[in-house]
Amino acid sequence: MSQERDFIGLEDARPPFFVGIDLGGTNIKVGLIDDLGQTLAWLTVPTHVERGAEDASRRMGEAVQKVVADAGLKPADIAAVGLGSPGTMDIPGGRLMVPANLKGWEYFPIRDRVAHYAKLPVVFANDATAAAFGEFWIGSGRDFHSMVLLTLGTGIGCGIIVGDLLLDGEHSHGGEFGHSIIDSDENARICGCGQPGHFEAYASATAVIKRAREALDARWASSLAKRLADGAELTPKLVGEEAEKGDELARHIILQTARYLGIGMVNLMHTIDPNGILVGGAMTFGGHETEIGRMFLERTKQEVRRRAYPILAEKTVIDYATLGGDAGYIGAAGIARMEHLKKRPA
Amino acid sequence: MSQERDFIGLEDARPPFFVGIDLGGTNIKVGLIDDLGQTLAWLTVPTHVERGAEDASRRMGEAVQKVVADAGLKPADIAAVGLGSPGTMDIPGGRLMVPANLKGWEYFPIRDRVAHYAKLPVVFANDATAAAFGEFWIGSGRDFHSMVLLTLGTGIGCGIIVGDLLLDGEHSHGGEFGHSIIDSDENARICGCGQPGHFEAYASATAVIKRAREALDARWASSLAKRLADGAELTPKLVGEEAEKGDELARHIILQTARYLGIGMVNLMHTIDPNGILVGGAMTFGGHETEIGRMFLERTKQEVRRRAYPILAEKTVIDYATLGGDAGYIGAAGIARMEHLKKRPA
Repeated sequence: MSQERDFIGLEDARPPFFVGIDLGGTNIKVGLIDDLGQTLAWLTVPTHVERGAEDASRRMGEAVQKVVADAGLKPADIAAVGLGSPGTMDIPGGRLMVPANLKGWEYFPIRDRVAHYAKLPVVFANDATAAAFGEFWIGSGRDFHSMVLLTLGTGIGCGIIVGDLLLDGEHSHGGEFGHSIIDSDENARICGCGQPGHFEAYASATAVIKRAREALDARWASSLAKRLADGAELTPKLVGEEAEKGDELARHIILQTARYLGIGMVNLMHTIDPNGILVGGAMTFGGHETEIGRMFLERTKQEVRRRAYPILAEKTVIDYATLGGDAGYIGAAGIARMEHLKKRPA
Repeated sequence: MSQERDFIGLEDARPPFFVGIDLGGTNIKVGLIDDLGQTLAWLTVPTHVERGAEDASRRMGEAVQKVVADAGLKPADIAAVGLGSPGTMDIPGGRLMVPANLKGWEYFPIRDRVAHYAKLPVVFANDATAAAFGEFWIGSGRDFHSMVLLTLGTGIGCGIIVGDLLLDGEHSHGGEFGHSIIDSDENARICGCGQPGHFEAYASATAVIKRAREALDARWASSLAKRLADGAELTPKLVGEEAEKGDELARHIILQTARYLGIGMVNLMHTIDPNGILVGGAMTFGGHETEIGRMFLERTKQEVRRRAYPILAEKTVIDYATLGGDAGYIGAAGIARMEHLKKRPA
């Protein structure tokens, strides 16, 4: 989706400028954003987790300087840098705790090290919160006062925004909603984290793959079996493709996943009661562009209508996110902007 | 617990003063509170739901005037009145929606009618949020930046405070956490609201009674059977009494309830990540004063330790609330105070 986004030229941009960094386990995206949330340029560098956190901090700082210089700007034109990072983390302390996808980076004071190399002030944020803030600022959530972004992938990311509050929690674990319990049974499905019954174990890409594998092992008839025999890898994308072509098992698995997604949404509605809940991430089956993507969303809404308070089922907007993989760095820049505004003299 | 609270005299009070109203389905409590959250006086009047909302509004207004006059104060000494009401409700609009325990009061503009009769400005709040704010202001939550109060009774009330934000939600349904789903199975226990799998169906007083009834019907040996044969009513209080005396079934039911209470807490921790979660309401089995009350809390914590992120299990305070039935009107007064402070000229 990134490829399709429009960039604006410096002549159409409104200062001040911000840089957003989206730190992932594989790649780091760095974007130059103006005061209206418009992207002037972005670049991506490999994370190289194995080289360690200090090395990555240096390369992040250099990437910030490069994206700024390439656009014809000076460091002084940048009001602040936002850094969105996977947890676990200590947001006020500016350091990582034990991030599952950044082995060897434990307890690293990443905010100040990136600031050191970028030679700019850095605001630290959770990556799921940053992505949510991107949608809240200029994406599908731009008309909301409060919203939740659920990012469906290997796990389920969750970012919660209420007005100008990022619901990060007191120990930076707010939005670990993927690890909330939707099945209390001791024999519930086991989550990637080892615990039973988590939302993530029922509504993530991992859950789709597991259910497909179980059904194929039980010899359910499905065009998936032929695709696998032909050498394809069992991914949500493959399941989505076969579902789009009409395969019953693939459709069943996707709609079953939507049922659980709806259950998770009801829990968010009965706790946070936001204006909207958006769905993003790798596992959206093509979104509004495909029949199965539309079915996935519709089945999710159906479960919400069945289980939520009627007024919430009626009023809470449920839709796909629109910024795709750009939400993270745009939102990180947006959070930096919000903090910058708070500090501006009256 | 109300009987044991200390009142202060006017000479020890710090102005300005506030009045808090806790509107319940049976009684209405009205308290006169000073700027430090200290109670000068309170009185209670029957709700008389059947007489209608206009009549109750008039009597609430009169009760406000009476509690103020009895303390030797004038209406001009009162900065604001806080009204905590059961939902469903429209908080910004100041009106009830479809409150389950106030039949016939649907869509009544209660905030402005009470203000009319009290001749004072009224701030409208959800009763569960008000109780949480009471604990947050001067109770077990007074050292927290954010907290949740779970009120265990026939249902489960939930009030969420994050800093100066009352997490009421966009449609005044934030904190309907009692109706979040902890069992996605179609054959899950049915909640009082008719929906399957809700937290309330597993951890409320209703759930305790139901489980006890099922076990007794299945002829489990228990001293509860003798108490019932002697004419006692099956209540959580009775189950608590027999558990305190050592009855195994009664203990089992209470500890099973604690397990589910812990599951609900983990979900709150992985969504809101507050400093603390407090437990109040009618069903606390004597709290810290009894062995079974201590066991109930300890078993809850045990489930949290087992299921929550380790840092949250370590750092999140789990304890009983301390204000009992006074939390509602104290908190309503506190919310009125907070709104009053926001409006004060700089």
